Amino acid sequence: MDHYTLLNFKDCVSKGGHLTPIEEQIDVPFQIKRVYYITGVAQAAERGCHAHKNLQQVLICLNGSISIRIKAPNKEEIVTLNNPSAGLYIGPLVWSELFDFTKGSVLLVVASEHYSANDYIADYNLYLTEAQAAFQEHQNTDP
Amino acid sequence: MDHYTLLNFKDCVSKGGHLTPIEEQIDVPFQIKRVYYITGVAQAAERGCHAHKNLQQVLICLNGSISIRIKAPNKEEIVTLNNPSAGLYIGPLVWSELFDFTKGSVLLVVASEHYSANDYIADYNLYLTEAQAAFQEHQNTDP
Repeated sequence: MDHYTLLNFKDCVSKGGHLTPIEEQIDVPFQIKRVYYITGVAQAAERGCHAHKNLQQVLICLNGSISIRIKAPNKEEIVTLNNPSAGLYIGPLVWSELFDFTKGSVLLVVASEHYSANDYIADYNLYLTEAQAAFQEHQNTDP
Repeated sequence: MDHYTLLNFKDCVSKGGHLTPIEEQIDVPFQIKRVYYITGVAQAAERGCHAHKNLQQVLICLNGSISIRIKAPNKEEIVTLNNPSAGLYIGPLVWSELFDFTKGSVLLVVASEHYSANDYIADYNLYLTEAQAAFQEHQNTDP
């Protein structure tokens, strides 16, 4: 699994609208222990701005549009989510910043672990040190 | 646990908007194995109109407003969801019909089991027979 990647979910369309199912270990590569959602965000606001040590998450925009700046060592990318059948998988030690929430936007996050304050890395320099060491080790052990 | 009931979730408010966490076995009374969401529904459409043999679900409206007609033996109620911090728990053998989806409405469902076509009861008369028998037994074994 990449450190972060876009996932495409099934979109079950009928005259009754769209239904998108997300089953643990099938549509996302982990057991779902928690979900959370973010609503009512002003367009100028930023959220996120941290990484996690172990948590795996999938971010899905269910209404409107939300942009996510992803940072990993030697890599930076902006992903805009505006489609309920697309999810952004974010693994451990990937820094993310959420911005450009349109009016009425809804962000759903499906998460692999219960909430743990100890799992957060909110200092960017500390993040870079830990991520560079971990990604280097990961590269060295790849076949 | 009642056959169906309203749940109130934590609403973490900040200048960055609202964040609502739902942890399995804490905020909902089951392990989360699946989530699904429904979007793009025309106001005149109806969805649901079935019960489940074993599935437990919590329905949450993340944007707009959605009404749910709940039927259990000798009981019928309409619940309107329009607040992301409210969830409607629906246990086994409760019939539900979804209607009055406002434009842009988003329904999130957190579910206790993987999808199983065998778990559905889509015939109302069959539902009534099964539910009456089960609820009667439940009543008789209550302390």
